[in-house]
Amino acid sequence: MSEERTLSGDEIAQHNSRESCWIIVHGKVYDVTEFLDDHPGGSKIILKYAGKDATEEYEPIHPPDAITKNLPKDKHLGKVDERTVKKVVKEITVEEKERQQRIELRPPLTEILNLHDFESIAKLVMSEKAWAYYSSAADDEITLRENHSAFHRIWFRPRVLRDVTDVDFSTTVLGQKSSMPIYITATALGKLGHPDGELNLTRAAGKHGVIQMIPTLASCSFDELVDAALAGQSQFLQLYVNKDRERSKELVQHAEKRGIKGLFITVDAPQLGRREKDMRMKFDDAAPDEQKKEGKEVIRDQGAARAISTFIDPSLSWKDLKWFKSITKMPIILKGVQTWEDALLAAKAGVQGVVLSNHGGRQLDFAPSGVEVLIEVVQKLKEELGMTFPNPDFQIFVDGGVRRATDVLKAIALGATAVGIGRPFLYAFSAYGQLGVERALTILHDEFEMDMRLLGAPTLKDIVPSMVDTKSITSHVVPVPGDRLYDNNYESMQIARLKDAKAKL
Amino acid sequence: MSEERTLSGDEIAQHNSRESCWIIVHGKVYDVTEFLDDHPGGSKIILKYAGKDATEEYEPIHPPDAITKNLPKDKHLGKVDERTVKKVVKEITVEEKERQQRIELRPPLTEILNLHDFESIAKLVMSEKAWAYYSSAADDEITLRENHSAFHRIWFRPRVLRDVTDVDFSTTVLGQKSSMPIYITATALGKLGHPDGELNLTRAAGKHGVIQMIPTLASCSFDELVDAALAGQSQFLQLYVNKDRERSKELVQHAEKRGIKGLFITVDAPQLGRREKDMRMKFDDAAPDEQKKEGKEVIRDQGAARAISTFIDPSLSWKDLKWFKSITKMPIILKGVQTWEDALLAAKAGVQGVVLSNHGGRQLDFAPSGVEVLIEVVQKLKEELGMTFPNPDFQIFVDGGVRRATDVLKAIALGATAVGIGRPFLYAFSAYGQLGVERALTILHDEFEMDMRLLGAPTLKDIVPSMVDTKSITSHVVPVPGDRLYDNNYESMQIARLKDAKAKL
Amino acid sequence: MSEERTLSGDEIAQHNSRESCWIIVHGKVYDVTEFLDDHPGGSKIILKYAGKDATEEYEPIHPPDAITKNLPKDKHLGKVDERTVKKVVKEITVEEKERQQRIELRPPLTEILNLHDFESIAKLVMSEKAWAYYSSAADDEITLRENHSAFHRIWFRPRVLRDVTDVDFSTTVLGQKSSMPIYITATALGKLGHPDGELNLTRAAGKHGVIQMIPTLASCSFDELVDAALAGQSQFLQLYVNKDRERSKELVQHAEKRGIKGLFITVDAPQLGRREKDMRMKFDDAAPDEQKKEGKEVIRDQGAARAISTFIDPSLSWKDLKWFKSITKMPIILKGVQTWEDALLAAKAGVQGVVLSNHGGRQLDFAPSGVEVLIEVVQKLKEELGMTFPNPDFQIFVDGGVRRATDVLKAIALGATAVGIGRPFLYAFSAYGQLGVERALTILHDEFEMDMRLLGAPTLKDIVPSMVDTKSITSHVVPVPGDRLYDNNYESMQIARLKDAKAKL
Amino acid sequence: MSEERTLSGDEIAQHNSRESCWIIVHGKVYDVTEFLDDHPGGSKIILKYAGKDATEEYEPIHPPDAITKNLPKDKHLGKVDERTVKKVVKEITVEEKERQQRIELRPPLTEILNLHDFESIAKLVMSEKAWAYYSSAADDEITLRENHSAFHRIWFRPRVLRDVTDVDFSTTVLGQKSSMPIYITATALGKLGHPDGELNLTRAAGKHGVIQMIPTLASCSFDELVDAALAGQSQFLQLYVNKDRERSKELVQHAEKRGIKGLFITVDAPQLGRREKDMRMKFDDAAPDEQKKEGKEVIRDQGAARAISTFIDPSLSWKDLKWFKSITKMPIILKGVQTWEDALLAAKAGVQGVVLSNHGGRQLDFAPSGVEVLIEVVQKLKEELGMTFPNPDFQIFVDGGVRRATDVLKAIALGATAVGIGRPFLYAFSAYGQLGVERALTILHDEFEMDMRLLGAPTLKDIVPSMVDTKSITSHVVPVPGDRLYDNNYESMQIARLKDAKAKL
Repeated sequence: MSEERTLSGDEIAQHNSRESCWIIVHGKVYDVTEFLDDHPGGSKIILKYAGKDATEEYEPIHPPDAITKNLPKDKHLGKVDERTVKKVVKEITVEEKERQQRIELRPPLTEILNLHDFESIAKLVMSEKAWAYYSSAADDEITLRENHSAFHRIWFRPRVLRDVTDVDFSTTVLGQKSSMPIYITATALGKLGHPDGELNLTRAAGKHGVIQMIPTLASCSFDELVDAALAGQSQFLQLYVNKDRERSKELVQHAEKRGIKGLFITVDAPQLGRREKDMRMKFDDAAPDEQKKEGKEVIRDQGAARAISTFIDPSLSWKDLKWFKSITKMPIILKGVQTWEDALLAAKAGVQGVVLSNHGGRQLDFAPSGVEVLIEVVQKLKEELGMTFPNPDFQIFVDGGVRRATDVLKAIALGATAVGIGRPFLYAFSAYGQLGVERALTILHDEFEMDMRLLGAPTLKDIVPSMVDTKSITSHVVPVPGDRLYDNNYESMQIARLKDAKAKL
Repeated sequence: MSEERTLSGDEIAQHNSRESCWIIVHGKVYDVTEFLDDHPGGSKIILKYAGKDATEEYEPIHPPDAITKNLPKDKHLGKVDERTVKKVVKEITVEEKERQQRIELRPPLTEILNLHDFESIAKLVMSEKAWAYYSSAADDEITLRENHSAFHRIWFRPRVLRDVTDVDFSTTVLGQKSSMPIYITATALGKLGHPDGELNLTRAAGKHGVIQMIPTLASCSFDELVDAALAGQSQFLQLYVNKDRERSKELVQHAEKRGIKGLFITVDAPQLGRREKDMRMKFDDAAPDEQKKEGKEVIRDQGAARAISTFIDPSLSWKDLKWFKSITKMPIILKGVQTWEDALLAAKAGVQGVVLSNHGGRQLDFAPSGVEVLIEVVQKLKEELGMTFPNPDFQIFVDGGVRRATDVLKAIALGATAVGIGRPFLYAFSAYGQLGVERALTILHDEFEMDMRLLGAPTLKDIVPSMVDTKSITSHVVPVPGDRLYDNNYESMQIARLKDAKAKL
Repeated sequence: MSEERTLSGDEIAQHNSRESCWIIVHGKVYDVTEFLDDHPGGSKIILKYAGKDATEEYEPIHPPDAITKNLPKDKHLGKVDERTVKKVVKEITVEEKERQQRIELRPPLTEILNLHDFESIAKLVMSEKAWAYYSSAADDEITLRENHSAFHRIWFRPRVLRDVTDVDFSTTVLGQKSSMPIYITATALGKLGHPDGELNLTRAAGKHGVIQMIPTLASCSFDELVDAALAGQSQFLQLYVNKDRERSKELVQHAEKRGIKGLFITVDAPQLGRREKDMRMKFDDAAPDEQKKEGKEVIRDQGAARAISTFIDPSLSWKDLKWFKSITKMPIILKGVQTWEDALLAAKAGVQGVVLSNHGGRQLDFAPSGVEVLIEVVQKLKEELGMTFPNPDFQIFVDGGVRRATDVLKAIALGATAVGIGRPFLYAFSAYGQLGVERALTILHDEFEMDMRLLGAPTLKDIVPSMVDTKSITSHVVPVPGDRLYDNNYESMQIARLKDAKAKL
Repeated sequence: MSEERTLSGDEIAQHNSRESCWIIVHGKVYDVTEFLDDHPGGSKIILKYAGKDATEEYEPIHPPDAITKNLPKDKHLGKVDERTVKKVVKEITVEEKERQQRIELRPPLTEILNLHDFESIAKLVMSEKAWAYYSSAADDEITLRENHSAFHRIWFRPRVLRDVTDVDFSTTVLGQKSSMPIYITATALGKLGHPDGELNLTRAAGKHGVIQMIPTLASCSFDELVDAALAGQSQFLQLYVNKDRERSKELVQHAEKRGIKGLFITVDAPQLGRREKDMRMKFDDAAPDEQKKEGKEVIRDQGAARAISTFIDPSLSWKDLKWFKSITKMPIILKGVQTWEDALLAAKAGVQGVVLSNHGGRQLDFAPSGVEVLIEVVQKLKEELGMTFPNPDFQIFVDGGVRRATDVLKAIALGATAVGIGRPFLYAFSAYGQLGVERALTILHDEFEMDMRLLGAPTLKDIVPSMVDTKSITSHVVPVPGDRLYDNNYESMQIARLKDAKAKL
């Protein structure tokens, strides 16, 4: 490797146009002139930093190595002499000032009573861009919401008069201890929500004895997140398989070496979904000069998701599993299975489990919720292979839409080993950093304790299928469209009112 | 027992700090310094009364003997010389003044047409704390509302051309006469709603010939409530079983001696539920100095429910029933059964009945409604034991969500002996005292008379299963999440309008 | 009968107190002193007219003979010398003035496009009392609205490529010709809505060739309504059976003599329902001095319904039918049957048909809709008696909730002979008099023509069961109560907006 | 044919009254005096142009030859000397000015992300009349909305780990290539939305390789639309069968000669539906002098639909199909089949396919959606005829309610050959002309690509029935009417709020 050049701020500053565009990221200088039109986020945002230091803008929305991996080596121009670079003074907009004020007004963590509360606060204190990226989902976001609704179609059948003085909801996930039957599932770009990004999750997970799944598209580097783990703290790795298999192999083997305990291969994302809230956000950034091109079909940015996912391999298929098994001894779990047919194929393929998931509703709208699929998977795998669940040799996980310990326990009753929770923890650290994640885990802990007592279940083994009523789970009804004329004519019953109130009417 | 000291107000007033904190309750002095951090309601509220008379604050939210039972004897310092104590002048807040005005504006009782109306008025005239405690329920309050909804999934099949000149809806509950197939179920802390607390219920029940179930956690003492009963007036006792079984035995045997006709052992509350509305209320009380601790994980108050329930024994189990049968001859009923499996165990255990109940939605969210469970219980107990219902030897009760006589009659048709009603009576006395409860009973009486005529049923025996259509009872649907874009684009049909109205549009 | 006295206005005017209270109605003087406390509408409203002419107030809300029938003969004091009576000057309230203005602003009839439209206008131009009486229903008005909803759970299966140049939807009802498969069902107190009361219906029915069912509780006298019929115009009679059977016999035999073609005996109203909107209306009238009695249980007025129905016999039963058959040769139809069991009893009892009806939702809440009951009746009568429908010997009618010809045709497809429509015609004449009713009939005529063409049915015989899909008819779902926290946190998708609109956000 | 007269503007201008009314359309003069009362749109609108040039008003709402076909030849008075005609100065209303402003503010096409977005913008920039005509549907517009809802009751079962690098969703429709499994279905009066009318569709369809179905009631002439097609571009013809069969024969044979590839005979419209939004629009035009006729039953205009459809033959029946087969070799498709029974008749009649359609909800309300019917058709045709689908010899199409590629793919999975899309393209060109339609096609293209990847389906053949869950498709539920008193009393859970927000409450 040749010795690296050192460039001065002044020199760089001259390459500030579409004709020649250099930018500084993390102290390195890159010539992105030819990349401008390929940038998934559009050229406009890059040109804003042409000849300048783009690190602050770059960081939260790109994995750490995005630029080094995607830009040919000859465009890596060298180091910058930091002292010679003029700081980019970021204008603070009115909106940003108001957001800063809202941050000051967050209620104390002790007033956060449930996982919903983090979302309410996060929505107010996150940047719009971060909120759009995290909260958005595919198409009309039907599946996003169905993920939560599905749990509401499952009801409990609680048992009484059982000694529940001590309740124990710790469990074992892929051979690793977990203090609760949940894990923190992989979500991308954590620094959009908080400067410490996914480190918030690592640290809180360590303290509370739960397992974190490290995402391929973390804002923090993989090693940072492993380094931050406590001794004995278990972590999993989520993998987007690269078109360049060597890159995947490198990551997987490095992970195994670093002690990662399970490999979750994402199988529901041959292409990352269209997420319109996220896409609309991008337009606002880009609006002014975009207008001029009206009338010409322009290939447009499709939000942060598309921006970071071009490397994912849409050709990934069942026959690749053999290769994965050849490169690692870690248990392999397929993340994103959505039918019993594929769960059956997975079991036959000899992997160690599946995550029944639709990617948080972010991929195919009208994909079913994991917990609905769970029921058919458990039934069919029993019929076809005689398996019973939970099953240590073929573990089933579910994620999507979880907000309460009751949601988790419904999945446990139906045969899941553990349940992944994603957005709620993102919102927790976006609103309150690591302490938010800890509070979230404490709340879940309290809820589990209470719920197991009230279910009459001293341990997770006591949470059995007969404790849930799933008769309505497959019901996907849309009420007959309303008769607006009839409904408008109908005069509602009135509740009793105070004398005064009546007088005023 | 040693002779009791008499302390002066001045002496007590010096113990007004976290270091030494004495308070006066009901003319007695207590040293609560060491108890401060254990107080389920937080230390702050006690410190407000340090060195002062706390009776007024204490009374409505604690059972009468809470302090004497929970504080070691050596902290009971003696009597206070009342003349020497300065009255605590309670500031009347703006909110309280407005509430007092609303009390003046209550509509006359004659305008209260149904049980819903009491709730509308109570909400306006109760203290926020009382409203929060009574109205709150577990988690997302899904079960709370399901309790009412479930009745709406049951429809009538009314019969015609039957002589209904005279209709009789009196019945017998555990051998006791009742003028209607309902009873007043146990609810805690009545003085939060009205200074006479549960006495309002005792008196109205006596006058109208219905049975009151006395709660373990009444604001009035057990004996007060028994003393207030008329000659021949029947009462039941609801029991939270104490970790110290002797305390339970004492209460049960005392109750039997005082003529109580049935023992309802609560089996759905090994721990009292998290009720977030109630919890939020507490934060408002405590807010200012709590802020300072932000960032430190603080174990927080969890509302009035938790405050009063630490004595409840989570180890209570089926094997305890034998002991209960050994200490009393009263009929024993298990309150809070939620599956046919447990109803079957109860029948086999030789108790006299069960209340199919989820504690008014206050314990486990997504527990099913009593009336839904009723259907499976009646069917399975027939299949397994050949029993038919209503059955004098094993009586089934239901509570939760009742607002109309139609609700009650649906349960009767399905085999219930009687139905418990709780909150509506609480709201009735909170809004109007004893007269409110009487009005509520009169309204129910009118509704029963009308409904039985319209069902073609001269007596309760004529209310049979074929009079109800329960085909939809097990349906727990959540409509597919709305298509917001489609719905927003759809332009609603417009009703006909006056010429003028159109001109303005 | 002794000769009638003639009294002077001055003499009457002296009896203007609770101690002695005389009133004038239709030129006759009555001593109502002893009746004051029995008046279902309360004494207050009578005392307002003590010593005065009460005709204007009396007329719309009482059947013509209410006072003569209910007051003992010795309280009928004689005639009044009209010239000596001071006119009661009725104050016109602000509300009434506004209502008069709204009447002026009614849209022209040509803009009324459907039956809903009459209701929209009627609501604006009727007196509040009339609106409350007509629109109200039992308890929570669930059945009222279910009546309409039930039709929305039935869908068509339209056939194509049939010659529908000419469509004929005339039919025969109890042997009488009808231009459409509907009839105008009986509704009480027509003068509340329009000074001509039920005459509006008689005249429009005559012109359009449909059959009117004359109500027992018409505001117009029976003979007036028969006299107003055209030659050959058919009418039916609805009968509330009187405790005094002779009174019923008299009416029935008189009706038969006057040419009435069918006797519809109401069997769903042993007592008229509690209708709370109507009851609340009464309180407003009575409010001021009622207040004083607060605290005392007062037996209160229960709205217009109760006021006019005390004579109805709750002992009416199956065994009375023989007697009815002995006193008339008119076809006898039982109006208000709500189960197949009672329809079967009716068929076996030898009557000529049943109306499957819940009295427009005004009697028992949670009674099923007629059209839902129709399906079970048709099926069971086929199973039990081998009958097919429509059946000339045992005709089935349905009423309740009809707003469109499609509603009617669904019932026809399922076996009904014809469908009763009530409130829409009431609203039609309340808003526009006779012309309103005619317009309503014209609209229905247009809808029938269109719908039959689109169903591929040239005649009513071609409307067969396979033309409707009733799979969802028995579904009575209530969605799981909403997760308010989740729903509030969810940020809705946004529709595309104009540049300007976005700028403003 | 005699030589044509040329008339002067002055001469024409004298015929400006109800007594003698001449108008100019497209440079020809017509005497419409006797036609005034027969004009489906009312006489008022014609009289506004009496003696003047009505072309601008006439054009968008009439097919090009409406006047020449409907007016007897002797009323065709001749040509006008254009130079002598005074231009009708159309007043621009405030509303129109505001509409023009909104047109300026349309967002750039690049911000239009989905098909819904076109509708949002079209609603704002179209004339009210055009919006009313396009958006309206039959009766209460239940079927209109059901068409969309039905797709939401069908859920996916996506498969994973299939190589989806290349996905191909091109297909063959009646032997013609299509780049996507959709076609642009026939909709009338395109010039209401855009001056180029249906030409926008022809041009965009050509560019994107999809097939346009030319409507009988196009605003552009048939030949214009054929002329605008590119070489090799396929078009279909939608046919309303004329009472005068020769007229239909002429059109069909001309179409075949011009290269039309399929004949879609509309069978669901023996009469065009009542569409009340459209009808209300007409009243506003006509309001002032209409008022005078109140009280007289006036036969009124029924909107644009009725105005253009009087020629349609309601006698069209199965036996006509033989004749159609005798006059053309084009494949014949029946458009508007709504039951399996009629699909079976169609297959037996030897036509080449059916469109399962309810005419966009514009004909019979409560007709089922095409996609629901599709399921029964596929099943029954298999049972009865052993056919499987998609079937090249008997192709099934579906239209109605489509907004997303997911909607289309659900129908494809169930056996449809292709899906018709109508209104979305209308809205696209009404808002943005041809470019709008192209953008709509691009969006669909993107969605298809994404969705097929996520379904694990490289080609349309891989989209199989087991990829959809249709268990809820036949569910047509209406929730039990709400308990308004209970719901009003229920106090919703509150989301977490900022300190400030709480202070304000």
